[in-house]
Amino acid sequence: MSLHPIDESLFPVLKPYLSSNSIHRHRRRHVTLTYAQSIDSKIAAGKGLRTHISHEETKTMTHYIRSFHDSLVIGIGTLLADNPSLNCRYGEGNRITPIIIDPTFKSMEIFSKESKVEKYKLVENYLNGSGNKPVIVISDDIEVSDDRFNCDIVRIRRNNGDGKLSWNSILNQCEDQFGLHKFMIEGGAYIINDLLLCPDIVDSLIITIGPVFLGENGVSVSPKTPLSLKDVIWWKGISDSVMCSKLK
Amino acid sequence: MSLHPIDESLFPVLKPYLSSNSIHRHRRRHVTLTYAQSIDSKIAAGKGLRTHISHEETKTMTHYIRSFHDSLVIGIGTLLADNPSLNCRYGEGNRITPIIIDPTFKSMEIFSKESKVEKYKLVENYLNGSGNKPVIVISDDIEVSDDRFNCDIVRIRRNNGDGKLSWNSILNQCEDQFGLHKFMIEGGAYIINDLLLCPDIVDSLIITIGPVFLGENGVSVSPKTPLSLKDVIWWKGISDSVMCSKLK
Repeated sequence: MSLHPIDESLFPVLKPYLSSNSIHRHRRRHVTLTYAQSIDSKIAAGKGLRTHISHEETKTMTHYIRSFHDSLVIGIGTLLADNPSLNCRYGEGNRITPIIIDPTFKSMEIFSKESKVEKYKLVENYLNGSGNKPVIVISDDIEVSDDRFNCDIVRIRRNNGDGKLSWNSILNQCEDQFGLHKFMIEGGAYIINDLLLCPDIVDSLIITIGPVFLGENGVSVSPKTPLSLKDVIWWKGISDSVMCSKLK
Repeated sequence: MSLHPIDESLFPVLKPYLSSNSIHRHRRRHVTLTYAQSIDSKIAAGKGLRTHISHEETKTMTHYIRSFHDSLVIGIGTLLADNPSLNCRYGEGNRITPIIIDPTFKSMEIFSKESKVEKYKLVENYLNGSGNKPVIVISDDIEVSDDRFNCDIVRIRRNNGDGKLSWNSILNQCEDQFGLHKFMIEGGAYIINDLLLCPDIVDSLIITIGPVFLGENGVSVSPKTPLSLKDVIWWKGISDSVMCSKLK
């Protein structure tokens, strides 16, 4: 399926928020946080519901942005809800490594070589050679043997205080273990709300706003505490507005 | 205090969403719903907190839009939280009538001629001749004598089912009693969430989005059920994005 064409006025707008795509020249870590939301700041009509928010044009933008990254990070909730391909359809031969944050390894059965559940797209694409091997980030207190799975496993020690996996540990280990440096993080809500409050991790924030209200039962993006943005620039598409910025 | 200048590119964008300002030629009712929100769809950082969201430029836009209306509607919560002037500072001699939706007449003491509380701006402006006489919309089961107040009173019968005051009754009665036809409705959240689901009442929806997150304790705009918009157009300002649309 071909991508909807995208207005060229978008490219110079995005440029300051994207890392150079010559990843061999610039091995510094770059993290882009990006998602599409409704006017009322919902990313889905309900938990686990894949929801139409943005125009085909801004979906093309997402693939264009992916082409500047070597890995694409989502949470286990998004994997289960959307069964996404997490590929890059912009340009030719752009491969991107899917990373799933899954502390309790809920996806164990999905990635098991002896899995009896229907194949998820990530597994299918890896097995038929069209996708990179997925990386699953789990807590290091889960004892499993790597060779049982159609994925690579990254083990992270839980923080002493809040029991969370620290973003720095996750990204550092992905850099060390797989040579990944350019991370595009796409959600879901739990991950977004967490990262909005991590200016030391996130280099760029790119939000698409679609002209729809998903209502009070939708899945909300709103961080625990207020925050301001800097270097804000808006682009308007056919029906969506796109905001590029950096965290203050 | 003079208004921040506004980019002229905004005027043709707004035009299809505004009623003609020759109100004597066009006496058809026109209702514009408008507000400023954060990216995460909050209109205030907390209940009763006046919050900075939009650029001075889009505040000028608000006064420009007001100049196309003869009345400005807010809820009692917004009156108490913001103590607003509800005037029109765009152009010269544009007078606008403040209408407060206050079913239980919480503002009785504020508008009483014998009030002992500090004067609200609406009362001050009316008494010193710089503002129109405010109109307070109350439930018709409240028995008060009109001549005790520095305001006009509109009495509306509560709906049999949900006990609410119907928007059609409120606006019709304001048209009949005071010859007002062009209503600009500015909030707060309860009123906005209600009216987003009333396509038969609202002619235009104009939302300013400021590049800030107010966080999960903010006052949220999100209607009870999802809704789509039509005739959507975006305008980008210095730091805000403005969406003009109609309800589907």
